[in-house]
Amino acid sequence: MKASIVTIGTEILIGQIIDTNSAYLGEKLGETGVEIASRFSVSDNKKDMLKVLKRAQEDADIVIITGGLGPTKDDITKKVLAEYFGREMYFDENQYEILKEFFVKINRPTTRAHKEQCNFPVNTEFLSNAMGTAPGMLFTFEDTLFLSMPGVPYEMKYITENHVVPLLLSKRENHIYHHTIQTAGTGESVLAELIEDIEDGLPEHIDIAYLPSLGKVRVRVSGTGLSESSIKAEVNTVVEQIESRISKFVFGKNQDSIESKVGELLKSNSATLSCAESCTGGNISRLITSVPGSSAYFEGAIISYSNRLKREKLGVKEESLKKFGAVSQEVVEEMIDGALSALGTDYAIAVSGIAGPGGGTKEKPVGTIYIGVGSQSNKHIRRLQLTKNRAKNIEYTSYAAMNLLRLFIEGKIDSTD
Amino acid sequence: MKASIVTIGTEILIGQIIDTNSAYLGEKLGETGVEIASRFSVSDNKKDMLKVLKRAQEDADIVIITGGLGPTKDDITKKVLAEYFGREMYFDENQYEILKEFFVKINRPTTRAHKEQCNFPVNTEFLSNAMGTAPGMLFTFEDTLFLSMPGVPYEMKYITENHVVPLLLSKRENHIYHHTIQTAGTGESVLAELIEDIEDGLPEHIDIAYLPSLGKVRVRVSGTGLSESSIKAEVNTVVEQIESRISKFVFGKNQDSIESKVGELLKSNSATLSCAESCTGGNISRLITSVPGSSAYFEGAIISYSNRLKREKLGVKEESLKKFGAVSQEVVEEMIDGALSALGTDYAIAVSGIAGPGGGTKEKPVGTIYIGVGSQSNKHIRRLQLTKNRAKNIEYTSYAAMNLLRLFIEGKIDSTD
Repeated sequence: MKASIVTIGTEILIGQIIDTNSAYLGEKLGETGVEIASRFSVSDNKKDMLKVLKRAQEDADIVIITGGLGPTKDDITKKVLAEYFGREMYFDENQYEILKEFFVKINRPTTRAHKEQCNFPVNTEFLSNAMGTAPGMLFTFEDTLFLSMPGVPYEMKYITENHVVPLLLSKRENHIYHHTIQTAGTGESVLAELIEDIEDGLPEHIDIAYLPSLGKVRVRVSGTGLSESSIKAEVNTVVEQIESRISKFVFGKNQDSIESKVGELLKSNSATLSCAESCTGGNISRLITSVPGSSAYFEGAIISYSNRLKREKLGVKEESLKKFGAVSQEVVEEMIDGALSALGTDYAIAVSGIAGPGGGTKEKPVGTIYIGVGSQSNKHIRRLQLTKNRAKNIEYTSYAAMNLLRLFIEGKIDSTD
Repeated sequence: MKASIVTIGTEILIGQIIDTNSAYLGEKLGETGVEIASRFSVSDNKKDMLKVLKRAQEDADIVIITGGLGPTKDDITKKVLAEYFGREMYFDENQYEILKEFFVKINRPTTRAHKEQCNFPVNTEFLSNAMGTAPGMLFTFEDTLFLSMPGVPYEMKYITENHVVPLLLSKRENHIYHHTIQTAGTGESVLAELIEDIEDGLPEHIDIAYLPSLGKVRVRVSGTGLSESSIKAEVNTVVEQIESRISKFVFGKNQDSIESKVGELLKSNSATLSCAESCTGGNISRLITSVPGSSAYFEGAIISYSNRLKREKLGVKEESLKKFGAVSQEVVEEMIDGALSALGTDYAIAVSGIAGPGGGTKEKPVGTIYIGVGSQSNKHIRRLQLTKNRAKNIEYTSYAAMNLLRLFIEGKIDSTD
């Protein structure tokens, strides 16, 4: 079974919003064994939408559409679907009752625009939406299933999880199995060379893909086949071969993140963590606390953006700031000590650097960043030389610092890291 | 002139990475007056890629392709393009020299896989890539321009800015002009009702679109026409009408963010800011410091994730924590006072809440969050009742707290905020 994904909205095409819905749907469909045949984004324009619906139908058994169901005038998906199917529109009293109840619940008035939202193509099957005002819709047309959902991500996700996934699971035939190896600390081509012979020896129905992002590379092994258990076993054998070659870089699998891995290590050691952040401005703490339950090991942080707070809150010496500068091995060492004692934790991460785009010098150009991790007994500091791009530097640094902590707790750290 | 965007990579289709390249390209093409006709994502599969290239060519004068140019075996874009154009591949000595120089510069060895990257379809025009190993490529085929770039975002951006944008600017004819009004503090349908008559009175060539995201709604006014200056003037007149209706919610325009607006307000008042964050875990500080130059007004923050640090670092009373709980108006008031005095700033933001998914009680269910802003003379605290979704709660809360600070500094705060 194959699916096509269509996202509707001029705002997507002109890049004002990033299409995260397609990625989410791709992942969910993959989990249900549905192959994604194609993916389209189209503007709020009838002619273009009709063309894309036709192409999506050509490619797939199921067409999944998001967007264009809101109360405003640029939302024309339902009218275009009615035209595409050759069906009339009608006012659905039952959906209007559901809508009015929803507004009573959230204690807001029903607007006229919302009432107009209760017009639908005839022969619509509704998929309830507890998160918003526009229900999901299901249509059968020329043996193709069309699913239409709102573009607001949490509404789309609610309908997908509660209606679409169960529906697709009930229809599955061929199986796709993915296993992703999460790595950090080296690049795509180094990994590829390390496992080249494994990759060359793979059968047709098993694939390896490298997915680099800042500070991390995911290595995805995928297989397809009729038997779920045998394809899973084959993929897992390849995964084991690869992991034994590149073990130092592997921190997890599938949806694991460095932040969740660090959390697991701290929990299993009954240890606590704090941060002293300068140029990352809170991003490391944010990543650590993005993990549910992180309050079990994360005590907190001092974001010492100014030198004054580095002195007053972390006990960094005036002398060190003068002699070595805020961006130095010495200051980061003192920040680690400061975090360990001021915040009373077993481990600490500290970072100081020049994130950019301004502020560099000849000795320390933009992108010079010191990261450090430590405990009462030991400290490791590394100097990074990154780019001129502020956002990229902050993101890369945050993952590099957390990966250094991972290696430190795992006892795997050495001078090459 | 119309363009189609094609992103290549199974990882995009199955949702393992989010397609940010298309959004970036959409924005850049819009700025150069090129209309986006369609957008496709396709897997690393020859047959599917050939089909998509054909559709993209049908829709547009320019086809812009990203992805599939890396050194690994799943990168087949060049071979597929050669087949689509009916051209042979050849080894380009000159590109190999450039590649070797690049590796000398970054002090890493050239791998065999990289050498293989120097095979190209004949009649390729190269677009230099200072950020990586794969150059951009330009092809003319049946009067359509094909541009192929690496999928790594910063490489793609380098080539776009340095080669693609100048090329497109040299070819422009029809003009598109967008102006986006940035709002926070109310929903899409409230805004739509407030400006309904303005919207109904617009001519055909001017459009309004509403782009809601967590805590914010962007209202985009777009116009198209042959004269750049007259379409710009028309759009700006509509923008002025709308802004006067919804002025309280407007915090900026186009690429402005609440965080940059807050920064501007603080700078123009020569005032400083600090944060005391609990459930947002550093996300507010991260957003504030994402703005280049934020060190001019942001001193730092205390992330008091544990109650112990709320007491020790912010002076929150043991009694208040016991009597009212960490998630309460009283504790957030004390956190503001603590940040103002401990971190020595003119303004402070404080947040405490239950981000979820666990940890709720009957009186304070998951999603109960107190946000507060204050100075020496005044404080404002608000209780939010949000969802069960941790990531969404953290993001919404961060924007709501910064918007409250904006209104506070602007003197626009009232009891309805």
